[in-house]
Amino acid sequence: MRTIALTEETRKNVLENLLKRSPSSYGKFEDAVAEIVENVRNNKDAAVFEYTKRFDGADINAGNIKVTKEEIDEAYEQVDPSLLDVIRKALVNIREYHEKQKKYSWFDSKPDGTMLGQKVMPLAKVGVYVPGGKAVYPSSVLMNVVPAKVAGVEKIIMTTPCGKDGKVYPSTLVAAMEAGADEIYKVGGAQAIAALAFGTESIPKVDKIVGPGNIYVALAKKAVYGHVSIDSIAGPSEILVLADETANPHYVAADLLSQAEHDEMASAILVTTSRDFADKVSEEIEGYLKTLSRSEIIRKSLDNYGYALVAETMDEAIETANEIASEHLEIVTANPFEVMMKIRNAGAIFIGEYSSEPLGDYFAGPNHVLPTNGTAKFFSPLGVDDFIKRSSIIYYSREALKDIHKDIIQFAEAEKLTAHANSIRVRFEEEDANE
Amino acid sequence: MRTIALTEETRKNVLENLLKRSPSSYGKFEDAVAEIVENVRNNKDAAVFEYTKRFDGADINAGNIKVTKEEIDEAYEQVDPSLLDVIRKALVNIREYHEKQKKYSWFDSKPDGTMLGQKVMPLAKVGVYVPGGKAVYPSSVLMNVVPAKVAGVEKIIMTTPCGKDGKVYPSTLVAAMEAGADEIYKVGGAQAIAALAFGTESIPKVDKIVGPGNIYVALAKKAVYGHVSIDSIAGPSEILVLADETANPHYVAADLLSQAEHDEMASAILVTTSRDFADKVSEEIEGYLKTLSRSEIIRKSLDNYGYALVAETMDEAIETANEIASEHLEIVTANPFEVMMKIRNAGAIFIGEYSSEPLGDYFAGPNHVLPTNGTAKFFSPLGVDDFIKRSSIIYYSREALKDIHKDIIQFAEAEKLTAHANSIRVRFEEEDANE
Repeated sequence: MRTIALTEETRKNVLENLLKRSPSSYGKFEDAVAEIVENVRNNKDAAVFEYTKRFDGADINAGNIKVTKEEIDEAYEQVDPSLLDVIRKALVNIREYHEKQKKYSWFDSKPDGTMLGQKVMPLAKVGVYVPGGKAVYPSSVLMNVVPAKVAGVEKIIMTTPCGKDGKVYPSTLVAAMEAGADEIYKVGGAQAIAALAFGTESIPKVDKIVGPGNIYVALAKKAVYGHVSIDSIAGPSEILVLADETANPHYVAADLLSQAEHDEMASAILVTTSRDFADKVSEEIEGYLKTLSRSEIIRKSLDNYGYALVAETMDEAIETANEIASEHLEIVTANPFEVMMKIRNAGAIFIGEYSSEPLGDYFAGPNHVLPTNGTAKFFSPLGVDDFIKRSSIIYYSREALKDIHKDIIQFAEAEKLTAHANSIRVRFEEEDANE
Repeated sequence: MRTIALTEETRKNVLENLLKRSPSSYGKFEDAVAEIVENVRNNKDAAVFEYTKRFDGADINAGNIKVTKEEIDEAYEQVDPSLLDVIRKALVNIREYHEKQKKYSWFDSKPDGTMLGQKVMPLAKVGVYVPGGKAVYPSSVLMNVVPAKVAGVEKIIMTTPCGKDGKVYPSTLVAAMEAGADEIYKVGGAQAIAALAFGTESIPKVDKIVGPGNIYVALAKKAVYGHVSIDSIAGPSEILVLADETANPHYVAADLLSQAEHDEMASAILVTTSRDFADKVSEEIEGYLKTLSRSEIIRKSLDNYGYALVAETMDEAIETANEIASEHLEIVTANPFEVMMKIRNAGAIFIGEYSSEPLGDYFAGPNHVLPTNGTAKFFSPLGVDDFIKRSSIIYYSREALKDIHKDIIQFAEAEKLTAHANSIRVRFEEEDANE
C-alpha cells in the first residue's frame, strides 16, 4: 500500500482521486432504462414477463411470479441450519438496535386552546430490491427489511431475479422470511423497479423502493423518483482506519483488506500518526495477500484507492478523516472514545481494537447500509426514519385565532396574497367592524 | 366549482387529473442548466458574475456580491416596523415548534462491555435559495432558515438574485437576519445553485441546498444532487377541505380560495358528505370572486384543478383524502379530532373551524414547506431532520467479540467474503487453535 506524508496538497490529491469513483457516464444506459420503465408502466405484467424471459432466461407468468409457501419450505430445507441459527441471532441484535430509532407522534397544548403536534406514521407499502447474480448477501436482506418492519410498514414487497429454472437463492428467501418480508416476486433489473413504482396486475405499487442493485437498477430508481421515494444510491465500499502506534498492525491490516475485497473500486485507507506503524501495516498486508481467496480484487482496489497517510498530529489525522467522511471508520488509538467525540463525518464508527468492521456488517445491530463517497457529510445510515413520515397538526380555538388574526392578515397582505388575508378576515368581520 | 359525486371511477379521474401537474417536459432546459452548472464549477466567480450580468442585468463582482452590514441596516430602515413586529412574533412560534423536533445522540451499554449508539450532528454548512422576481415571500425565508438554525448548522448561506441596481428586497434581508442567516450573496438561478454546490472564490461550498425556485433552479438542484444533498422539489400548492354539513360554507369557500390564488396550477378540493353544503360553498366562491384581487388566477386554478366531491359516507370522504394526500388538509366536521386519527396522508392537518390554512403559512409554528402532488404518502414537512445526520457507534470489548466471533466468521464465509471472516479470525487465532 502506498504510504504518503499528509500535507495540504497530498490530502487534496487523495480526496480528488477518491471522488473519481462517483457514478458517471451513466448516460449511455439511460435511454435503455427509460424504455424499460415506460414499457412496464404501460404494459405492466406483459412487459415484466417479456423482459424476464429476455434478460434472465426464465419463463415467468402470473401463475408463478410470486414465491409460494412450497418454495419457501424448500428453501428452508436447503439452507444450512447453522447459518439459519446465525441469521436469527443477528436479527435479534438488528431489531433491538432499530427499535431504539422509533419515533412517536407528539402534541403540545396550551391553556389558550391551541394544540400543535406531529403525527408520525409508517409508509404503507415498501419495495425491497435484492440483487441476484453471483454474490448472494442474506445480510443485506436483513438490513433492508428490518428497519421497514420496525417502522410498522404494513406490506414489505421484495423482488429479486430468479435463475433460468425459476428458482430464487434459498438463503435470500430464508433471510427475507426471517426478517419479515410479506411477499416476494421473481423479477429483477429495471423492470422490477418500474413494476414496484407503478404497479402491475401481479405486483403491487409501493410508496418507497430500497435496496442495492446494478447500474440498470440504480438508473431505474432515479427515473421513478418522485412517483415513489427511493433510498440513496450506494457507491463502492470504504474503510478508513484511524490508528496510532498503540494499535495492532496485524489486526488493522486485516480490517483494511476486509473492505478492499468487495470490488476494485473499494477504498481502504489508513490514517496514522506513526510512519513506523504504517510500514508495519503494509508488511502485514503483503503477508495476508498470499493467503486470501480474493487477493486479485484486493490488489487492484489497493492500487487504485488504497493509502497509508501519515499525519504529524492526531488532530491532523482526525481532520483528514472528517474530510474523507468514510462509510466505515475504525478508531484504534490510545483513547478512542475521545477521538470519536471529534469525528463529525462517518457512516458508522467502530471504536477500539475489538470492534472490527465485519462485526457491523453482520451482527452488532446498527444498519450496514451506509452513506459512501463522502456523502456521510449530509446523509445517514438506513434506518427507521427512512420508513416513516410526519404530518404537522394545527388546532387553534376561536379565542386563540382571534388574538392573533390581525398579525396574519398583515403578513399575508405584505406578501400580496389577499385571498390568504381574506380567509382569516371573514372569521372576525363583524367584531372587527364593531371595534 | 364543478361538483361531482364520488364513485370509484370519478375518484380515479380526479386523481389522474391532479397528477398531470407533475413536473415534466423539463428536458428542453436540461442542457442549458447543465452548461451553467459546469461553467460555474470550472470558472467559479468569473462565471457567476457573467451570468448575473446576463440574466439579472446587474454588475456583481468580488467586492459587492456579499450583502454588507450597511445594506442590511438600510433594509431595516425600509421595512414597515409593524411587519417586523409580526415577523418577530411568528419567529417565536416557528422556533418553539422546531425546537421540539430536535434529536439527541444516544448510546446503550451492556454489562458484557458492548456499547451501541447513534451520534446526531448538524450539517456543517447549508445553502438557502430565495427566489427574486415579483413575488417576495419573507415567510418562506423564515421557514427555510429556522429549522437549519435549530438543528445547529454552523453556517447558513443564503443566495438571492438582486435587481439591476444591485439591491435585494428589504423584507428578504430583514427576514434572513431575523431568522439567523449568516451570510447573504446576490446571485440567483442555476448559477447560484452551482456556486453553493461546488464553491467559488466568493461563495462557500455547502453540504445541502434548500429553498424554492423556478425551473432552472429546480433542474440545477437535481443536477448537483449527490455532490450535495437537496430538499425535495416543490410542486404547485394544494388544499383539501374535508367537511360535513356542520361546517360554515363562508369560511370553507374562503379557505379554498386562499390556495387557489397561488397560481393556475394550484388545486383546491372540497370533499364533503353533503351535496347541499357543496352547493353552498360554490355559491360563496362566486361571491368572493367578485372582490378578490387575484380572481383571474383563482378562476383558472379552479377550472383546472378545483373540485367539490360529494361522498356517501364520512369514511369514503376520508379514504379519498388519504388517496389524494394533499399538501394542506383542513378537517371541518362535527368531530374533527376523530377524523384526524384516520388520516394517513397529508402534509399539514388543520383541525376545526378556526384553524384556517393561512394560520399555518405564517404564524402557528409548523413548517409551511410541505410535500405536494401526492408525495405526502412518503415525504414529510421540512424540519430539523433535514439538517442533521446520524453516525452509528459500535464498541465491543474483547470478551464480547470473543463470545460471538464464530458466528460472524460463519456468516461472512456463507457470503464468500473471506477477508471479512479473516479480520475476525486473526483476533482469536491462538485461542481457537488451542481449543
